[in-house]
Formats: sequence, structure tokens, C-alpha cells
Amino acid sequence: MDPFAGVDRYLEEHLDASLRELTGLCEIPSVGAQNTGLDECAAMVAELLRKRGFEAMLLPTDGAPVVFAERRGRSDKTLLFYNHYDVQPAEPLDLWESPPFEATLRGDKLYARGVSDDKGHFINRLFAIDALLDRDGELPCNIKFVVEGEEETGSPHLEGFVRKNTERLAADACVWEFGEVDFQGVPVQYLGLRGICYVELSVQTAKTDAHSGLGGTIFPNAAWRLVWALNTLKGPDERIRIPDYYENVIPPTERDIELATKIPSRANEYRSRYGIAGFLRGTQGGVELSLQEVFEPSCTICGLTAGYQGTGGKTVLPCKASAKVDLRLVPDQTPQEALSKLRSHLDAEGFDDVHIDFLGGIPPGRTDPDDPFVKLVVESAKEVYGVAMDVIPMVGGSGPNAIFLECLKLPVVTQGLGYPGTNAHAPNENVRLDLYLKCAKHMTRILSLFAMT
Amino acid sequence: MDPFAGVDRYLEEHLDASLRELTGLCEIPSVGAQNTGLDECAAMVAELLRKRGFEAMLLPTDGAPVVFAERRGRSDKTLLFYNHYDVQPAEPLDLWESPPFEATLRGDKLYARGVSDDKGHFINRLFAIDALLDRDGELPCNIKFVVEGEEETGSPHLEGFVRKNTERLAADACVWEFGEVDFQGVPVQYLGLRGICYVELSVQTAKTDAHSGLGGTIFPNAAWRLVWALNTLKGPDERIRIPDYYENVIPPTERDIELATKIPSRANEYRSRYGIAGFLRGTQGGVELSLQEVFEPSCTICGLTAGYQGTGGKTVLPCKASAKVDLRLVPDQTPQEALSKLRSHLDAEGFDDVHIDFLGGIPPGRTDPDDPFVKLVVESAKEVYGVAMDVIPMVGGSGPNAIFLECLKLPVVTQGLGYPGTNAHAPNENVRLDLYLKCAKHMTRILSLFAMT
Repeated sequence: MDPFAGVDRYLEEHLDASLRELTGLCEIPSVGAQNTGLDECAAMVAELLRKRGFEAMLLPTDGAPVVFAERRGRSDKTLLFYNHYDVQPAEPLDLWESPPFEATLRGDKLYARGVSDDKGHFINRLFAIDALLDRDGELPCNIKFVVEGEEETGSPHLEGFVRKNTERLAADACVWEFGEVDFQGVPVQYLGLRGICYVELSVQTAKTDAHSGLGGTIFPNAAWRLVWALNTLKGPDERIRIPDYYENVIPPTERDIELATKIPSRANEYRSRYGIAGFLRGTQGGVELSLQEVFEPSCTICGLTAGYQGTGGKTVLPCKASAKVDLRLVPDQTPQEALSKLRSHLDAEGFDDVHIDFLGGIPPGRTDPDDPFVKLVVESAKEVYGVAMDVIPMVGGSGPNAIFLECLKLPVVTQGLGYPGTNAHAPNENVRLDLYLKCAKHMTRILSLFAMT
Repeated sequence: MDPFAGVDRYLEEHLDASLRELTGLCEIPSVGAQNTGLDECAAMVAELLRKRGFEAMLLPTDGAPVVFAERRGRSDKTLLFYNHYDVQPAEPLDLWESPPFEATLRGDKLYARGVSDDKGHFINRLFAIDALLDRDGELPCNIKFVVEGEEETGSPHLEGFVRKNTERLAADACVWEFGEVDFQGVPVQYLGLRGICYVELSVQTAKTDAHSGLGGTIFPNAAWRLVWALNTLKGPDERIRIPDYYENVIPPTERDIELATKIPSRANEYRSRYGIAGFLRGTQGGVELSLQEVFEPSCTICGLTAGYQGTGGKTVLPCKASAKVDLRLVPDQTPQEALSKLRSHLDAEGFDDVHIDFLGGIPPGRTDPDDPFVKLVVESAKEVYGVAMDVIPMVGGSGPNAIFLECLKLPVVTQGLGYPGTNAHAPNENVRLDLYLKCAKHMTRILSLFAMT
């Protein structure tokens, strides 16, 4: 008899109840960048854990509190879940087809800000736990949760928190906040995350805006200063121009290239989803694109602001201008190194008037693709998805996995319900109900197998 | 006996009534760029003219209507006033100390959007006419008004209107929409205006924004495309890089330099008003600054927009970016020439993905500094201001004076109530009551003297 038959039935029968719980959590606009709803959301997360018999507490940091929870299980193995309860801003609001903080079911998808990243993943893990508790009355292993509230703003206090609580967080393995299937429905195992150094560059050239008819040929213009400063960071060849910026970049290993070669190309999926004419530097796809996507540092302008932005024209010479810039890092770059090289570079190029505001940084981090826990998670997917997970050595996004890898010495795997159309960080973020169910089923296998290792 | 003693007394006694009329006109938010309140404002302008015995009519254009009005006077000389009833957007609203569309008296100043540019000038001319009608029961000369509603958006339909109505608009001289005193209180006569070619540059690189962790090294980024395209237009040396851009620029003549040398330097005033560290290209002041300010074409970024602009960070790769760019032109450049050279340049530099939206253009125009009407206006200022006007051969701003100069063959002078702190186009636009009164007094002299030429 299939030991998971009852578990799977439980999950199928309680899907609606889990989605209702998720809907409730998504109603709290816990936007870290805008500092709204964080305390309320943390309290609800703790309450949801207590309902499952976890001992849950809100541990203060210098920013949003961390929810820590634990419950003992049958085996003495301990699994640590890392999730976060903060979400990205919902803007631009006019592109949402339903209100971002009212989870809305349309067809086979549930839409809301955070419904995937990361509230959906958190609730989905509770859902899997519910099914095992229903069957066994106990957990197969010890489980700990760390649910932080500052992931979307660069996790500025997580490292300090983990270093202060290494004994409390002691575990044998860690499951990361997210995971997904690729465009063919194949679940993917991401074993590394790029780091990030996120900055705001700003210039102020006068104390007030001027008439552009008056000052155009004689007054300094903050928007021009910003454009020229940005232009020194990267040119159309896509090479970052900051001196020695690439000196600590470790190129992909042979094993990395071997794994990357097995990954189905996402080129066509990217082209159609984003409607882009082509990829940077003319790359066509295949392993070349897979490596370019994740094994290189990036320098991305995320936003530009200056002067008049309404309809029509306004003849104004702006005194202030700013840009948000996302620098993704690869091993062994560090945020401190990127920040310091950026400052030196701007100064050397004559842009000491450009102020750098450091908005957050995380170092890159990788798990060994040959770790036994990785293998367990990858292989156990077969029973649910029909195929094992594709192992991807490195992914473009960032998260504080390096803290867990280095401070807690844990292998870190990804497992989750995302898919290429999940629109994380974008309007109309959503989860597919079929994947929501599969993800929970997979987690019941992971927990059960892990308990026996 | 002073023939203007009664006129001056009338103006002093009726100042409050004139300001009340101005307050009413400023209540209409006739923002051309946002297409609000234009018809309502045109109707009120016509009504105000009819109250003075003018025959006034609203003449349609393909945009906002032009108010045309005329009234015959004692002499057969005809003076044409050019004004406009549209105003600049009031944004940024948070910098206004009182609501922009509720004229508010604080100390010796009246604050509102349009209170100077240009509703204040229009009402002030009616005020001078009232004083002469009160004394004489008739006008000294024929007076015509052209009050358009599209000046702040580049007067796109004025040239067509003037060409279609050359007989109706026939006159002997023209008084321009604005005028001002300098920082020492000396009235200034501006005899030329730079032209303008105002464009919006926009790029779209995908159909939707992407996660900046995903796409930074492989997806095209609209903000980067815009920055690189803008960077090709002008570098930190302030020289416009568009090929042959300067070929039709006429350098200042010896007479221009002679006049410019007499102008008191505004360097210190600019430094303290705008809080700028220095002028472009290191110019210190004097005639060099005066010439650089107005006899050179400019390329000004008036606004930048892309991606996330809220507080904190959002990890997004923007699919759209745009910039507002103000190109000021000097004789004999034309807007069509600037536009065409800009397009060719962007294409040649590899930026054919940068779309140009032409938001308005006006050619530059100049009046002969030795015209008799110029002399009359300049000299008649002495009785009111204690000094003759300073003659400035060219000014940095733009307006459709070339249309009147070329189509109607009229000398065009400036006369008005502005001053360096008037904040036209900026928050807290205002008029000083003492200058409001002097301006009307000066106009009664101009009308009376002109009638006798």
C-alpha cells in the first residue's frame, strides 16, 4: 500500500482551506521597502505556526522581527525552513488586473502580491506539515522555521541574527524560501544564488529647479550628471567598466558547465514571455545563455527619476536626479568590495558629486551539487512530478543563503511552487493550483525520507 | 501739471480690484500640458476684455482656442498685445506654500500658478487700459489682443493662426507676453528669444518588466538604452555632439556684444538664488556668462523616468524608459532642423530603438535693437522706474515671437512685472505688488506716447 495515499488525499481535500489561509496572509500589505504591515504580518505568521503545535516567537532585530519556531519530531534529524513574510512593492498598480492585496482566483491561478514570493511557499509548507500530522499525529523529524521580514530589502539584519543564534538554529539541512518548475513543468533545483549590492545614486546640483530656458547653457543639471555617471559604469558592450571589478569572479567549473549543459534552454520561453528581440551580446541560447545569465556579475538600472515626468512638456532644469542600481555578484565577489570599487570609480571619473546610498547587500553563496541531501530532494521529486529535478548549479537571483551556508554549515536546497509565469516582483503575481498541490506532496516525501537518513 | 497724475492715482486706488480680478483668473487651472480648464479660461479672458469695451471672440484652432479682441482708439496707430492664458503644471505640489490655484497674498507678494506667467501680465495690461479709459473715456490708440492657450506647450497652432489672420492682426508694433526687472530693480528690454525643439525620447525593450536578478546579464534594459542614447547627445564638456549641430548658429555681432557688456552680471544673483557651486565650463560671470547664457544652443534633460522610483529598493529590470529633452535654438537654427539632425544622429549611433516624440517647436526670433518703438519703450521707463530699460539683445527663454516678427513684420518688445524671484514654471510663483503697480504705470506711458508717433 502507498504510504502517501492518505497524505495525498488529505492535501487534495484541504486545498481550499490552505488557499484561504494564504488569502488571509496576503491581505496584509507587508511591503518592506515601504515599511507597512510588517509587525502585523509577523504576528500572523507566528500564530499560524502555533496552530500546528510549534513553539513560535518573535525575535527582535534592528529592523523587522524574525519569527522563529520549532517542533520536535520522531527522528532526531532537524530540518530548517527559511522563509520571509515581507513582499515587494505592488507598483505599478495600474497594471494589476485585481487588487494586489486581495487574493483573487481566476481560472486555475490565485493572484496577489506575495502569493508566490514568499507567503505562498510558507503556507504550502504548513500545508504539507498538516497532512503528515493528520496521518501520524507527529512530525517525522524536528522542524525549525526562520521567517524574516527583510528579504526584499536585502536582509540587512539576518546575518547578525543568525550569528547570534547559531545554537538555536542548529540543523542538518536547510530548505530555501522558494523553488519552481521550468517552462516544461520540470522541477528545478537551484544550488547557488548570486549576491547583490543594491544602491541608489543621487545628485543634487542646486537648491531649486530652474527654468530650462534660462539655465540650459550655464547651470549644472542633475539629470545630465546622473546620465554621465551611469554611462561610466557600463557601456553598450555590457562590460562593467569599474576597474578590477572582475578580479574575484570565479568562472564556472567543468562540473558547472556539465550541469548547465543538461538544462533545457530557456531562450524561446524568455523571448515569448518578455517579447524581447534578442539577448545581450547577441547570445542565441543554449549553455552559453545559461552561463551568461548566472555566472557573470550584472549592473542593472532598476529606476531613474528626475524633473518633470507628467504628460506633455515642462521646461524645467532639474536640481535633483537619482537612479536605483542593482549589482548582482558572483563568487567570490562581496557587496562591500562592489560598493568600495563603485565609490572609487565614480570619484576617479570626476563624479564625487554623485552620492551613493547603500540599500542592501548579500554575498553570493553555493551548495555542493553532490551533497546527499541534494540528491534526496532531487530524486524524491520523481514520484510527484514524474521526473527528478533538474540540477542548476547557480541562479540569477539573490538571497541570504550564504549566511546559512557559512554560519550554520548547512546544505541549502530549493523547493517550491513557482513557475515561469509566476510574476514574482511584477504585477499580477500568481500561483498555479496544480503546482501548489504538487509542491506540498513533494515536501511530504522530503520530510519523511530525510527523517530516515 | 503732470498729465499722468490722475492715471497714477487711479492705479494706486484700484490695485486691490485688479488683484481680485487676477485672483479669479488664477483659480482656473488652465494647465496646457494636462489639458485642463482651457475653454473655461478662454471664456473668462474674453469676458474680461468685453468689460473694457473690446469686441472679443474665441477663434478656434486645432488645439485650444485663441482669444482675439480689438477696440479702436483716438489715433490710427495700432498696438498688438500677445499674451497667453495657459499655465505650466503646478507639480511638484508639495513644494508650494499655499495652494497653486488659490492666489494667496503673503507680505507684499501674491502667490499662484500663472500669477506672473502669464495671467498677471494680461490683467496688468487691462489695469493700465482701465486707468486711461477713466481719464479720457477712450483709448489713445487702437489696441488688439491675441491671447492664446498653448504657449506653455510650444504654441503648436499659433503660426497657422497668425498666417490665416494676417489682416485681422495687422498692427504697427507688438508688446510681448512678459517683461521684468533685474535683481537691482532695473527694467529690462529683451529683444530676442531663443527657439525651442522639445522632445520626449522613449525606449521600450520588452513587453513587460523583468526581475533584475533574472535578466541583468541577458535581457536588454530600457533604462540603459536611454542613458547611453542621451550620453551621445552631450558630454560633460557641454558641447552638443549631434553632427553639424552648430552649422547655422550665428555668433553674436559686435553690437550684441556691446549691449551685453552693459548688462550687469547676474552671476552672484544666480549663485545665491539657485545655490549652485559654479557655472558650466567654469565661466565666472560678466559678458562671457551673458553671451554663453543666450547665444548658444542648449540641450537640457528636463525629466527622466524608468522603473521603480519609490522609497527603498525594488529589484526590477524596466522595459520602458523616457526622457524629456529641451533643445533651445539660436538664429538661424530651426526646430525642424534640430529634430531631423537628432533622428539621424541617434540612428547613426545605433539608437534606432529610441523613439522621438516631438512635443513642440518654435524658431528663434529677434527685434532690431535700433527700432524707434524699442527706443520709446526703453526711454519711457525712466519716469516710472527712475532709469531707462537695460537693452538685452537676446534672452534664454522661448516664445513664438518669430511668428509675429516674420508674418506680421512687427517690432516686438517686452514689458512686464516679473522679477528674478518670480518663480515662473516653479513652485511658489509670485508677483511683487510694487512692481505690479509700476508695470501698469509704464504701460500707460507707452500707450500714450505710441499714439502720438
